[in-house]
Amino acid sequence: MRKILVIGIGAGDPDHLTVQAVKALNTVDVFFVLDKGEVKQELVDLRQEILTRHVTRPYRVLEGRDPDRDRTAGDYVGAVDDWRRRRADVFASLLESLGADEVGAFLVWGDPSLYDSTLHILEDLLARGVPFEHSVIPGITSVAALTARHRVNLNQVGKPVQITTGRRLAAGWPSDVDDVAVMLDAHCAFADVPPDTYVYWGAYLGMPDEILISGRVGDVAAEIVRVRAEARERKGWIMDTYLLRRS
Amino acid sequence: MRKILVIGIGAGDPDHLTVQAVKALNTVDVFFVLDKGEVKQELVDLRQEILTRHVTRPYRVLEGRDPDRDRTAGDYVGAVDDWRRRRADVFASLLESLGADEVGAFLVWGDPSLYDSTLHILEDLLARGVPFEHSVIPGITSVAALTARHRVNLNQVGKPVQITTGRRLAAGWPSDVDDVAVMLDAHCAFADVPPDTYVYWGAYLGMPDEILISGRVGDVAAEIVRVRAEARERKGWIMDTYLLRRS
Repeated sequence: MRKILVIGIGAGDPDHLTVQAVKALNTVDVFFVLDKGEVKQELVDLRQEILTRHVTRPYRVLEGRDPDRDRTAGDYVGAVDDWRRRRADVFASLLESLGADEVGAFLVWGDPSLYDSTLHILEDLLARGVPFEHSVIPGITSVAALTARHRVNLNQVGKPVQITTGRRLAAGWPSDVDDVAVMLDAHCAFADVPPDTYVYWGAYLGMPDEILISGRVGDVAAEIVRVRAEARERKGWIMDTYLLRRS
Repeated sequence: MRKILVIGIGAGDPDHLTVQAVKALNTVDVFFVLDKGEVKQELVDLRQEILTRHVTRPYRVLEGRDPDRDRTAGDYVGAVDDWRRRRADVFASLLESLGADEVGAFLVWGDPSLYDSTLHILEDLLARGVPFEHSVIPGITSVAALTARHRVNLNQVGKPVQITTGRRLAAGWPSDVDDVAVMLDAHCAFADVPPDTYVYWGAYLGMPDEILISGRVGDVAAEIVRVRAEARERKGWIMDTYLLRRS
């Protein structure tokens, strides 16, 4: 039976890989890479560096073209579903190149369970009758990388924390929580929360270009917006996340 | 300046350690161990196994007695504060044994940012004027280990997820979320959520005794309660966590 590994590779530092992930990498015959195009070439290079640094046996790399998602669609879930279907078509054709007893792997930034679609797509393929076994190797999330670099707890003592998207935060502060970690925010929703909220922001976490800013929203939001825009312009892409804490 | 490392060591599998954590371990002169007593000797042994497996230079291990927390107190936050103060006293005396240019380390199960008090205690020590520098190394959370073993996403597409305690869940399903990851639940609060909720439960994640159960709460809650009680009785302790998903 063909085997697929979904391996969390951490937030950007090649040393975020776990020993378990390194061992798993060294069982892989084919690494599947979905290339999003030139703009994120730096991330493709970083993933290649992870393989070069940690894998000591021969392997093949098979690239597919990651279909674009319609980010202008009002129907977010519908647009994601459509994108997932097209992505599953790409995955299915990649899998055809895997020999009967070979091991293939998808490398996922952060942890495969958090705002990543690889597991959904594999379920879609199983539902289509594509035969394979699969396992998941957990990874360091960008949220854990963020709190480590700021040396803060994600939650307050005995209290809950919510992980959500910029889109959701923009619709209002979630109920029942004082601590909110935000991912996938292209529109700086933190700038509109109450000014006394504390923000711990980080971009390119674990990478040489890492940027960290923290403080009262009222004091640092404009700085984060400016620094974020400059970095995104300079590098052509950005990966950032932040924690909001209401005292 | 004395340096303190707070190192996340993952959910129980020694291979959960990251390459970054292994490198950090190999800079440490003194490992501080807070022993909770005989009952969790297995966890102390597991931590020792991590050192034996991953550290290649000489080190000292210094043990302190972890003060008991009053778990019967109605005032949860107050009881935790008192426990933290007494714990900080123990930490302060441990730190006195660290030479001027030496590196000390605390090893934390999971990730140091999630339901762990080490960072709070170090802040308390800094506030007391105890001089040291500190860094945090992120780790694989039990939540990431749980979702990996069940091969499920933590969040639904574009939706938020809340991480909370059993105590909080027992007070009612949190607002604004359909997905709730629960830690520190000694009282099986999952048994009281609506029966159509899906539960992904895991105990001793990443360890040889790992147990996984999933299904509709209405179908599997009683089984989890029974299996959990038997395992806790047999081993004398349990570490478990679960994800609840409302469709």
